[in-house]
Amino acid sequence: MKRAAVRMADVAALAGVSAGTASKALNNTGQLSQETRDRVRRAAAQLGFTPDARGRALSSGRTFTVALLTTDSSGRFSIPIMRGVEDVLSAGELATVLCDTRDDPLREQTYLRSLVARGVDGIVVTGRRTEPRRPINVSLPVVYALAPSTDPEDASVVVDDTAGAASTVTHLLSLGRTRIAHITGPSHHRSAVQRAEAVVASAGDALCGEPVYGEWSEQWGRQATDLVLRQRPDAISCGSDQIARGVCERLRELGHSVPGDIAVTGYDNWPVMALASRPPLTTVDLRLEELGRRAATLLLEAIDGRAHHGVLELPAQLITRESTLGT
Amino acid sequence: MKRAAVRMADVAALAGVSAGTASKALNNTGQLSQETRDRVRRAAAQLGFTPDARGRALSSGRTFTVALLTTDSSGRFSIPIMRGVEDVLSAGELATVLCDTRDDPLREQTYLRSLVARGVDGIVVTGRRTEPRRPINVSLPVVYALAPSTDPEDASVVVDDTAGAASTVTHLLSLGRTRIAHITGPSHHRSAVQRAEAVVASAGDALCGEPVYGEWSEQWGRQATDLVLRQRPDAISCGSDQIARGVCERLRELGHSVPGDIAVTGYDNWPVMALASRPPLTTVDLRLEELGRRAATLLLEAIDGRAHHGVLELPAQLITRESTLGT
Repeated sequence: MKRAAVRMADVAALAGVSAGTASKALNNTGQLSQETRDRVRRAAAQLGFTPDARGRALSSGRTFTVALLTTDSSGRFSIPIMRGVEDVLSAGELATVLCDTRDDPLREQTYLRSLVARGVDGIVVTGRRTEPRRPINVSLPVVYALAPSTDPEDASVVVDDTAGAASTVTHLLSLGRTRIAHITGPSHHRSAVQRAEAVVASAGDALCGEPVYGEWSEQWGRQATDLVLRQRPDAISCGSDQIARGVCERLRELGHSVPGDIAVTGYDNWPVMALASRPPLTTVDLRLEELGRRAATLLLEAIDGRAHHGVLELPAQLITRESTLGT
Repeated sequence: MKRAAVRMADVAALAGVSAGTASKALNNTGQLSQETRDRVRRAAAQLGFTPDARGRALSSGRTFTVALLTTDSSGRFSIPIMRGVEDVLSAGELATVLCDTRDDPLREQTYLRSLVARGVDGIVVTGRRTEPRRPINVSLPVVYALAPSTDPEDASVVVDDTAGAASTVTHLLSLGRTRIAHITGPSHHRSAVQRAEAVVASAGDALCGEPVYGEWSEQWGRQATDLVLRQRPDAISCGSDQIARGVCERLRELGHSVPGDIAVTGYDNWPVMALASRPPLTTVDLRLEELGRRAATLLLEAIDGRAHHGVLELPAQLITRESTLGT
């Protein structure tokens, strides 16, 4: 196994900075300008500089590894969040380990014991639900992403579902829609309830009936369409892209044009649903990569001894397509 | 940070085996019966045994970490493969690091340098395509999964697409279908070509026209349906579940019943497509978790000095549902 012979001092010399500054830039610590950080990283890339992680771990007591602990077996949410986490950490040469607990508390305990034994620097905890979750019990820096910790002393980064759902209603109202129905997932899912409450609050008189709760599936979208058509809506706001896709399919079968007769909005911006839908869906992007980047940044600060507390809400982003705008 | 006080000797005593046997069982090495391995693992779980990974790394020169290097940014293929890899490795207390190269050769080089510097024990290389790929250039045990290495000296585990596609044809013939059409993805994708050639070879006289190549999308499935209907098929075999879902949708729009008039088969067993399709799809499961388990087992043997060479083909599995069987 060949080791790179390039030293931190070589990187510093090429970048025209001190070795200390080069180290800070590559480890994403300290107060440096973005320009300096970029210059050091370019120099490191140019020279093929690789810090010996095991050597660093021995001298510093750190392993320069961060774990992403997830309950999301499908990777639907954890993969984009991991991409964001990696964006931030890989610049500082930290490795990210993905641990899939498969929503099994025993498996979670086993992973936590193993991560503590390995001496990881910190843990990002994420999942596929937005319900607040009990905190994990480790003496390490931890940041929660998507699902916040129930302990207000912990640092959590979540998506602002209230503003996200409200943005679809504002969009529908701006298009002149006056009778808005809402179809969503299970009433025991926080994301369904939060989005529904935001739709009710922002639609006001334009709401044409109570939100209809059911499942996160296309099939439920098709079934619920028949129910809400009795409310004679000119727009149907949906709690997920899967539901919205089912709604569009059922409306087409019944001869209603989308968005001519009825505009439809989804939620999630899951390409395989939002783009395959006929027509493609106006929807809300959860910005999961940005969520991962913010969680990783908070974690690095916590590792550096500057821990944050409380819940940081990130804005979601409305993406407009043919299901409301037409062609 | 609290360390577990349980030692390997305690685990061995509870399991009624020697410390050497307990170590082999937990590290997935040596020749032991499955029953012994299971007994030791249960004992370890019961006592909450956690080997100190850093201590082991220092004494053995190993870090007990394996990397999964993937080009599959969506996680569609890499997440199930990773689950399989973890199944095998976590029993031996090895951590799995997921590295997403985003199909960028520079990013891949950076990851490889970093993994070598960290002294990982081995690497599983995977992707989202089945094309043979150039080998990675590291002096570490490596196993390729899904996409084989072009070097016959390397160890690769792949899905037997030829047998998988043939199994759909055998199934259609057994149902009495005599006019089989085939719609698939791009002709420059190895998986599309292999599956199409297998369909042609196994359908024989029952093939009612040349395979139709296009895209991996529902939209292409809908478009291609109109093309192949001129061949007057009583069955349409598709190269992916997305294509098959589009075919079913278009057939329904045109008033053809599935499978009454025309039976349809998919490929991949991707739940979000295969189950949401109307009707749900008969399809081929790639058994990606099993692929991951086999790759991890080969990697452990290579780490132990018993490297395999050549390509191991795993059988895929036909899953029958309403799109061929009816309700």
